[in-house]
Amino acid sequence: MTRETFALLEEYMLSCAGDAAHDGEHVRRVLYLALEIAETEEGVDRDLLIAACLLHDVGRPEQFADPALCHARVGGEKARRFLLDHSFSRDFAARVGDCVRTHRYRSDDPPGSLEARILFDADKLDVTGAVGMARTFFYAARVGQPLYTLLPGGGVSDGSAEEPEGVHSVLREYKVKLENIYGSFLTRRGGELARQRQAAARSIYENLLSEIREPHDTGGSLLGRYIENT
Amino acid sequence: MTRETFALLEEYMLSCAGDAAHDGEHVRRVLYLALEIAETEEGVDRDLLIAACLLHDVGRPEQFADPALCHARVGGEKARRFLLDHSFSRDFAARVGDCVRTHRYRSDDPPGSLEARILFDADKLDVTGAVGMARTFFYAARVGQPLYTLLPGGGVSDGSAEEPEGVHSVLREYKVKLENIYGSFLTRRGGELARQRQAAARSIYENLLSEIREPHDTGGSLLGRYIENT
Repeated sequence: MTRETFALLEEYMLSCAGDAAHDGEHVRRVLYLALEIAETEEGVDRDLLIAACLLHDVGRPEQFADPALCHARVGGEKARRFLLDHSFSRDFAARVGDCVRTHRYRSDDPPGSLEARILFDADKLDVTGAVGMARTFFYAARVGQPLYTLLPGGGVSDGSAEEPEGVHSVLREYKVKLENIYGSFLTRRGGELARQRQAAARSIYENLLSEIREPHDTGGSLLGRYIENT
Repeated sequence: MTRETFALLEEYMLSCAGDAAHDGEHVRRVLYLALEIAETEEGVDRDLLIAACLLHDVGRPEQFADPALCHARVGGEKARRFLLDHSFSRDFAARVGDCVRTHRYRSDDPPGSLEARILFDADKLDVTGAVGMARTFFYAARVGQPLYTLLPGGGVSDGSAEEPEGVHSVLREYKVKLENIYGSFLTRRGGELARQRQAAARSIYENLLSEIREPHDTGGSLLGRYIENT
């Protein structure tokens, strides 16, 4: 890919950049991770992979404005049109569009090409480890979700329990999603990198929970002693 | 303290609650940690401590609206007035106001009373460990600051280097502030609890940095191979 083409795609990507969890630095990390994975696979089309990585989140603003929309579907079509409008071949535009459309896994439309599977893994890697947790905090803050919630009985929830309508805390996101992604990578190197990061995410979750729970239980019972029932 | 008094102060606290890093749950954690520290000190006035903890951040909205204001100074005066308006004694209102005013350390106005020192430590404990890091992510997202920045040469900064005007990343906040707070606690138990959490914060910082830096360096040099200079 020429430097000019890269700059054109990067500029379009930045013009569509979303929240802090899906900004230009996220795209850069995904691109770099994808190139690292590609080194361990045979016959990767680097131009296709680079374009797909740069454009994979261009549908984010639409999903942010209307959560019923899927940024992967919207983005696949936006990416394809952008490439056609800028004189890329119909075949290249379609293949990039396919990678973008399938980077968010749905069983009825899984990533088909090798480049699509690499993009899928690279994007998913950015949800693993300490980086994945950091992005989850940023996203929660952005959409007004809390770090944790209290159980009806007053204790601190570890995220296993359902939360009230409209509430989805960081600890809940860890238990229902982040904890379980490490087995679902599609390339060997992607899975390997994910497993290297697994302990970092788990220890953040466990340290958070104990740092919140211990004083909550100790202090909560001390408070009971100093508050009179009148 | 009666249950009614606690509810009155709590209601006022919630009406002044700030951003997600300084919300009602932060106040609850500070209160519980303060009660835990108080168990190891002699002669603590629990009513004073509980009131000071509940009201310590009531000046946050003013500081958020105008960063030139100090929430501790504003809050000390707001707390004192609120207590006077609700028939607490002039002495009690002044002592609570003093705790609130000095909970943010300034060398010319350090925490004076035992209760003020306990509040100071309890509030600072919520900046330590995984909880402190989580709150830093929330705060950065709220005020639009990034996770990290790149050095002029293109590498990922570890937070040691100065950042451009107006930029203050999470990694920078760790290096200039969070990393260095563990030695500055005023009570024995506060320092002990802080040191128990120190490794959790450090490992989040180190894991983040390596997860970002390694692919950045590897992928960055791979990208150079696939981008032609035309």
